[in-house]
Amino acid sequence: MNKLEKEIAKKGIISEAVKKISEVEGVSPEEISKKVADGRIVILKHKNRCLGIGESLRTKINANIGTSPDVCDINFEIKKLKAAEKYGTDTVMDLSIGGDIDKIRRKIIKESNVPVGTVPIYEAAIESIKERGGIIKMDEDKIFEIIEKHAKDGVSFITVHCGVNLKAIERLRKNPRKSLVVSRGGAFLISWMVTNEKENPLYKNFDRLIEIAKKYDLVLSLGDGLRPGGLIDSTDSSQIEELLTLGELTKYAWDENVQIIIEGPGHIPINEIEANVLLEKKICNGAPFYVLGPIVCDIAPGYDHITSAIGGAIAAWKGADFLCYVTPSEHLSLPGIEEVIEGVIAAKIAAHAGDIGKGIKKEIEKDYLMDILRAKRNWKKEKEIAIDKEKFEKLRNKFPLKEKDVCTMCGEFCAIKMVEKYLGTKIIF
Amino acid sequence: MNKLEKEIAKKGIISEAVKKISEVEGVSPEEISKKVADGRIVILKHKNRCLGIGESLRTKINANIGTSPDVCDINFEIKKLKAAEKYGTDTVMDLSIGGDIDKIRRKIIKESNVPVGTVPIYEAAIESIKERGGIIKMDEDKIFEIIEKHAKDGVSFITVHCGVNLKAIERLRKNPRKSLVVSRGGAFLISWMVTNEKENPLYKNFDRLIEIAKKYDLVLSLGDGLRPGGLIDSTDSSQIEELLTLGELTKYAWDENVQIIIEGPGHIPINEIEANVLLEKKICNGAPFYVLGPIVCDIAPGYDHITSAIGGAIAAWKGADFLCYVTPSEHLSLPGIEEVIEGVIAAKIAAHAGDIGKGIKKEIEKDYLMDILRAKRNWKKEKEIAIDKEKFEKLRNKFPLKEKDVCTMCGEFCAIKMVEKYLGTKIIF
Repeated sequence: MNKLEKEIAKKGIISEAVKKISEVEGVSPEEISKKVADGRIVILKHKNRCLGIGESLRTKINANIGTSPDVCDINFEIKKLKAAEKYGTDTVMDLSIGGDIDKIRRKIIKESNVPVGTVPIYEAAIESIKERGGIIKMDEDKIFEIIEKHAKDGVSFITVHCGVNLKAIERLRKNPRKSLVVSRGGAFLISWMVTNEKENPLYKNFDRLIEIAKKYDLVLSLGDGLRPGGLIDSTDSSQIEELLTLGELTKYAWDENVQIIIEGPGHIPINEIEANVLLEKKICNGAPFYVLGPIVCDIAPGYDHITSAIGGAIAAWKGADFLCYVTPSEHLSLPGIEEVIEGVIAAKIAAHAGDIGKGIKKEIEKDYLMDILRAKRNWKKEKEIAIDKEKFEKLRNKFPLKEKDVCTMCGEFCAIKMVEKYLGTKIIF
Repeated sequence: MNKLEKEIAKKGIISEAVKKISEVEGVSPEEISKKVADGRIVILKHKNRCLGIGESLRTKINANIGTSPDVCDINFEIKKLKAAEKYGTDTVMDLSIGGDIDKIRRKIIKESNVPVGTVPIYEAAIESIKERGGIIKMDEDKIFEIIEKHAKDGVSFITVHCGVNLKAIERLRKNPRKSLVVSRGGAFLISWMVTNEKENPLYKNFDRLIEIAKKYDLVLSLGDGLRPGGLIDSTDSSQIEELLTLGELTKYAWDENVQIIIEGPGHIPINEIEANVLLEKKICNGAPFYVLGPIVCDIAPGYDHITSAIGGAIAAWKGADFLCYVTPSEHLSLPGIEEVIEGVIAAKIAAHAGDIGKGIKKEIEKDYLMDILRAKRNWKKEKEIAIDKEKFEKLRNKFPLKEKDVCTMCGEFCAIKMVEKYLGTKIIF
């Protein structure tokens, strides 16, 4: 059995992983170790690397990749992985539901330089359709076998929708929804539970899940199967019911030294984001919060990387620790390479804007450096620190430049250049 | 002399413009009229149309177009105008500083279906360079003559940097800045004032400006010549000094029944936006707030439509009334058509997300309708109410669709479809 990061931290020992994370983040190893012990930071391990997610650390982002029944090409997914890594994703999740799922997952893990997450219930459901003719015939043991297989393969974290229990479905019936259920994992489980009149195996046998997680120091990301599917149902009773259950499961997992992440919505209006972060932090005792978006407006399909950058930035600023990217393809299709890139960059901007609000010094310094470079019109260095150097170059040269130290927006009437001439930089700097 | 909207409203009379705005916005004419009287709403007139901007109304957006010395083609600017209108801008500002400025402005006014704004100091400065050999030789009378010419041409609102006075420059000297001055109008005036050791004519002779505004019911947008040019200088003394002056000028203008908009920054971190909106609303007694962005992170050139959508959404939610778009070209070049479209859509998303937070019912209803259509998988109607129908179509058909009532993200494993089957819509709806 692996040494569990949480167990080591609880003993007051600084692990190698904590030391590495401390160097990258610029936060003391003591603080990180204390927060791992308290569950406020989780450590994802992948090959020889490790990634910290949680309080005091830079906000991380995740890119979802993976096949669908309609679009299934392993090389295409590896290209998405490489694109997501190039533009700075911190993790990827392989959400494949088409083709040879085992093969795809193993290939992604092999090729990736960042921790990989999965949602094993997808494979369980799809195998059940293939082998038994329906999701509703899914075998309970099979779910746990698949989870262990993923862990063995080197998956760093898994989404498990443990909070979608019978009580939550009852809550759903009493509090009708317009947007139904949009979580794939949630839908698989609800279909199975309602038809079989049985409790969610991931809830009922949570201890079995915990045993697997302990064996591999696998981080459990407790999924939000009942996240609202539209603003019309935001912050509703079913969503909160599920969160309350996740809070209880978190305590159970922590006692067993299993690291926990909590997943959150989804579609949330701008004025409810802070309350959602606060609720998660209170109910789940500070466990890292992993939000999808949130998407703050529903009428912009094709631009949900932007609607979710707005929500993600606010969520991060208010305390969310981990943002799942949303691509322009959300609500429309499986993303292509271009959409993956747009999604990663938008999420990165959101996380960074949130980190400025959080006061993460190492992040703020980057912007301050850019500001000084701009005042000096040092275009070369500006490009070097830009999130997307290629786009910088492309747009800067969109029109022919007459003077090299300004841009084509103002040309010779560059405000900075004028003021420098008449006020002088000595007075200003 | 035109009848002044503010004067009519102060008398308790409901004007024709107020009636029209009431119909479009779904706010009672009495409330709008009262707020026009109080200066909390301004009315921009353009040909036979009128646009309300301010408290209780939908947040409006502006698209900047116009030539630069390096890129100067009147037909290109008309194409930008049409693109901005197509994607829903509420106003355009012609910021031309290259070519025959009078001709371009008149053409834009003629072709536009939305109110047009300008920054007359640009023309004054550039004519002074042409005729007298330098900005610093700009003739004071000329500034006012150009302003009147713009008003006569049918410009609905103008930016006037009245708050960049000698006191503000003194404040700037005492409080050094790293990002210098990034406002073109501010830079023109500072260069002139410092060299000539004279007060800003737009401040010193504000009464002369007021007379012109009264003659044409021209809305004055009091510019932020000292907005910070980077996060490093956000919410600094010079910025606030200028705002205090604008607050005093607002009162003076209101007494003369001149309508006022206040312009604001610029580069502001996510955690300072609310304070900036509050300050403007307090200091300027509720005058409509027109923000550029705000841009919440400086390291993403090429994506400042996204950095400013984040800032704009929060600003709108907290009370900003009017968002100036920022295009992906910001800090890099003059925008092309594509960048204008991206800028307009991002600003529209920001305004809409803010309006949801503000509680603007007519706006929220649009999202709720989308949510219901999605649950019903009514793709045809979803497209109809999407902000960008073309992009909707393009992404939906990115990959071949095997089943027409789902999308290629989940294919047959559509969560909504599954839950509908097993839980039934009767239970959920």
